[in-house]
Amino acid sequence: MTDSSNQGTRLPSGELRPIYNRDLLLDVAVRVFTERGYDGTSFQHLSLASGLSKSSIYHHIEGKEQLLRLGLQKALEPLMASIGEPAATTGSAVDRLTYLIRSNLQIMADRLPYVTLLLNVHGNTETERWALEQRRTYDKFVAAVVQEAIDEGDVRSDLDARTTARLIFGMTNSVREWYRPDRDTTPDQLAAQVSSMLMDGIRAR
Amino acid sequence: MTDSSNQGTRLPSGELRPIYNRDLLLDVAVRVFTERGYDGTSFQHLSLASGLSKSSIYHHIEGKEQLLRLGLQKALEPLMASIGEPAATTGSAVDRLTYLIRSNLQIMADRLPYVTLLLNVHGNTETERWALEQRRTYDKFVAAVVQEAIDEGDVRSDLDARTTARLIFGMTNSVREWYRPDRDTTPDQLAAQVSSMLMDGIRAR
Repeated sequence: MTDSSNQGTRLPSGELRPIYNRDLLLDVAVRVFTERGYDGTSFQHLSLASGLSKSSIYHHIEGKEQLLRLGLQKALEPLMASIGEPAATTGSAVDRLTYLIRSNLQIMADRLPYVTLLLNVHGNTETERWALEQRRTYDKFVAAVVQEAIDEGDVRSDLDARTTARLIFGMTNSVREWYRPDRDTTPDQLAAQVSSMLMDGIRAR
Repeated sequence: MTDSSNQGTRLPSGELRPIYNRDLLLDVAVRVFTERGYDGTSFQHLSLASGLSKSSIYHHIEGKEQLLRLGLQKALEPLMASIGEPAATTGSAVDRLTYLIRSNLQIMADRLPYVTLLLNVHGNTETERWALEQRRTYDKFVAAVVQEAIDEGDVRSDLDARTTARLIFGMTNSVREWYRPDRDTTPDQLAAQVSSMLMDGIRAR
């Protein structure tokens, strides 16, 4: 176990010890939370993964739950911001839905580890319930736009709005299981292609 | 702890003890595996959930891994059978793909707990690797049909076949998270509606 005063020196392996700031520690914590589950992650796990002592970790953050909240916020902030954008609130419902699907995929691709953390949340702690509540607000907003698009005659009505929204999220959320930004497809390309596939699929004929 | 000789009598709660056969025990085990993970399930958990003693469980099966294999088989058997059907092997690729998507959704709806078990498998045991190998064969078969449908000009080519297959499975597999057969939508309706949404989405214009 090493102290924060050792930052910038070498690890026992000879590797240069990274100089930690809160963001770097957060990246490590989010990875460990996703691998072990939040409940299954102890301070010792965080300590081992970061190479920081418990007291050094406390130098950066208040506790484990604060790391969870900061990690979830990195996913929730852009998602919640997207439903406030003019492109999500003005114009035809079908155009707003296209915008929402595209921005969802871009956020997914840009913030893959954080969105993955968000999608694994079960609501066991106050922070998890806070995150679920925001996700629910987001999901309901999208389902309402699907309903408007059905009412405007632009989206097929053989499935109800809620089911259609669920199927859309089913496809977009599954992207986290295989998409890696360093492959051939850029986040923009992915967003454009998946959203056109989804929109062609649900458009009224 | 009670013995198999007590079957058909009452549980301490006063409920009638179910008369177990292998299928009923399997249903209980698959539920527990999905809740706790296979690795996290002990014989004691199975004993508590079924109300059977360890020796009574052994009366029905050889061990925990056999229960896993039987559970996975209930999902894999119809999936692997579907890719051998004439509808999956003859005719235009776009028609074969439509059939594969519909049968996938029907199997999902019919065998929800078993398909959920299959989709959670990580390959930690020999049985899990056996199941993953079959899933891979199934996934490859579908991806090859997508490729043929692209080659025949019926499916859009802006996404490669593998990505398209992944997005299709992303949507169909997500159905397990919310679909319950006792709701308004029958498995047939679900299969018809989701497959038409997917096929309209990927059809070449």
